[in-house]
Amino acid sequence: MTAVVTCADVGQLVAAIGALVVRGAPLLGVAGAYGVALAALRGEDVAEAAGRLAAARPTAVNLGWGVRRALQAYRDAAPGEGAAAALAQARTIAAEDAAASAAMAAHGLRLVPPGARILTHCNTGSLVSAGEGTAFAVILAAHRSGRLARLWIDETRPLLQGARLTAWEAGRAGIPHALLADGAAGSLMASGQVDLVLTGADRIAADGSVANKVGTYGLAVLARQHAVPFVIVAPVSTVDFATPDGACIPVEHRPSDEVAAVNGYQVAPEGTPAYNPAFDVTPPSLISALVTEHGVIEPVTAGNLRSLSVEAGRLAGPQPGSYVER
Amino acid sequence: MTAVVTCADVGQLVAAIGALVVRGAPLLGVAGAYGVALAALRGEDVAEAAGRLAAARPTAVNLGWGVRRALQAYRDAAPGEGAAAALAQARTIAAEDAAASAAMAAHGLRLVPPGARILTHCNTGSLVSAGEGTAFAVILAAHRSGRLARLWIDETRPLLQGARLTAWEAGRAGIPHALLADGAAGSLMASGQVDLVLTGADRIAADGSVANKVGTYGLAVLARQHAVPFVIVAPVSTVDFATPDGACIPVEHRPSDEVAAVNGYQVAPEGTPAYNPAFDVTPPSLISALVTEHGVIEPVTAGNLRSLSVEAGRLAGPQPGSYVER
Repeated sequence: MTAVVTCADVGQLVAAIGALVVRGAPLLGVAGAYGVALAALRGEDVAEAAGRLAAARPTAVNLGWGVRRALQAYRDAAPGEGAAAALAQARTIAAEDAAASAAMAAHGLRLVPPGARILTHCNTGSLVSAGEGTAFAVILAAHRSGRLARLWIDETRPLLQGARLTAWEAGRAGIPHALLADGAAGSLMASGQVDLVLTGADRIAADGSVANKVGTYGLAVLARQHAVPFVIVAPVSTVDFATPDGACIPVEHRPSDEVAAVNGYQVAPEGTPAYNPAFDVTPPSLISALVTEHGVIEPVTAGNLRSLSVEAGRLAGPQPGSYVER
Repeated sequence: MTAVVTCADVGQLVAAIGALVVRGAPLLGVAGAYGVALAALRGEDVAEAAGRLAAARPTAVNLGWGVRRALQAYRDAAPGEGAAAALAQARTIAAEDAAASAAMAAHGLRLVPPGARILTHCNTGSLVSAGEGTAFAVILAAHRSGRLARLWIDETRPLLQGARLTAWEAGRAGIPHALLADGAAGSLMASGQVDLVLTGADRIAADGSVANKVGTYGLAVLARQHAVPFVIVAPVSTVDFATPDGACIPVEHRPSDEVAAVNGYQVAPEGTPAYNPAFDVTPPSLISALVTEHGVIEPVTAGNLRSLSVEAGRLAGPQPGSYVER
């Protein structure tokens, strides 16, 4: 079942972001920008709305980046044209994101061997992007080119984005796939049935540390143990040069009931407390490569990331500056 | 809520074992023996019942071991006394299991440092044992002696034994505890909040490879990565010298809907296939120590296991022979 949620004001959009109705790093950037345009078009206090939007979730750097780009466009516009300028900026960000998806797919495809059995975590497809997504865009490209033998999908507890969303996207695309409990990834790799792990990222620090959905770090450790390439697919807007390293990435901790109950069904005894970080941080030493819309970074080092930013800035204009300046 | 299920014949017991109403390696041994006694008391075909009981699940070696012990007692008895002999044997196995729990708790406590934050997986307490269990018996002993600062409980997908059962046992015992999604164990260890990992075992091969609830292997890899001791607690009856190594342990694969649906609530699209092994296998190189009722094996090697078996045989009589002879 597919439900379409319409957010008619900034308050509804902030609530939708907080409840993960709108989620995934690239789409959060698009949504943040559209939120600023929405505030401007409705005559709300745009700066205040921008602040609320940027703070709706703490980890994905794209959210604040999209908000700031639209806010800047609003402020730079001629009198009376701010709302139109913010909306145009949001549309530009969405178009850039779709183009970035296509470019990431093309670059990432080079890392996929024929007959690949790919393991992915969380959801990184068209439900998180104005295009076909990040890691899932590479998976789709591999499927279309005949290189994908099977997609393994971590169910991704606690919110089951793999089971609810990625399995749906895989089925819709006709990709041979199977779901697994997150804890089954270890024996799957040990049995030699995984050739490549592909995930997205919510924020990449300047040293190459990657914050992504909780469970990603454990996968990276397992991938290294089994000599399976572990590849991150993310647009350059995910890199936050203002965050020097992984320890500086703020990790959102979410309510206990996301773990103690499953889809509203109480599983653990009432009142059971939970450790429920939404993300974890994977050090660059465990990451085989980072696929961006501007190419593949391999190995993932601070220097290579910095070079990419310069390259991306030359190619795309103001984009990198907007996240360096924070 | 606690429900008591009464199995009035062998068919009901086999069904309860298959549905994991009766589960956990030690309790499966007890249940298998009582099942043989039940067949004998009801006048069923005892050999046929023993075969069905032993085959109800493939991985836990204790099940067949308990069945064989009771069957042997039945066969060795004087005419007309087989049922009573099988029942007496089942009661002996239950009493031995309770005594083994207490002994494992005492031996394991020596490995728990003061102020320990222990992570456990699945359920290993009084719900899997005629006593206080295996790993959970050590945890209870640590709690009673004031050494346990906190118990971290993996929810243990797909069947959520950690959330449903271990959280209940911990709450009942007044142990400070918190639940986590299995995928969160990596960042928890990385944050330095785990001092020790304790789990049970479903079968231990002659080389020291441990089959246990799926997800255990990944925890062992993560524990090694973070230099956290990874300790298995299991009675000697869990060691199967007829299984030379981990690759020879049969791993039960269970239905897809255990993953695709959660507690009967469909999460993934209908018909989504799943990779759903109930167990995984951890090599002895990743295991810091094995706590048994006869002492602690450290390091876990084929030679040390063999010495333990000789020692256990000297102490406990016929017990080791019954699993060596298969």
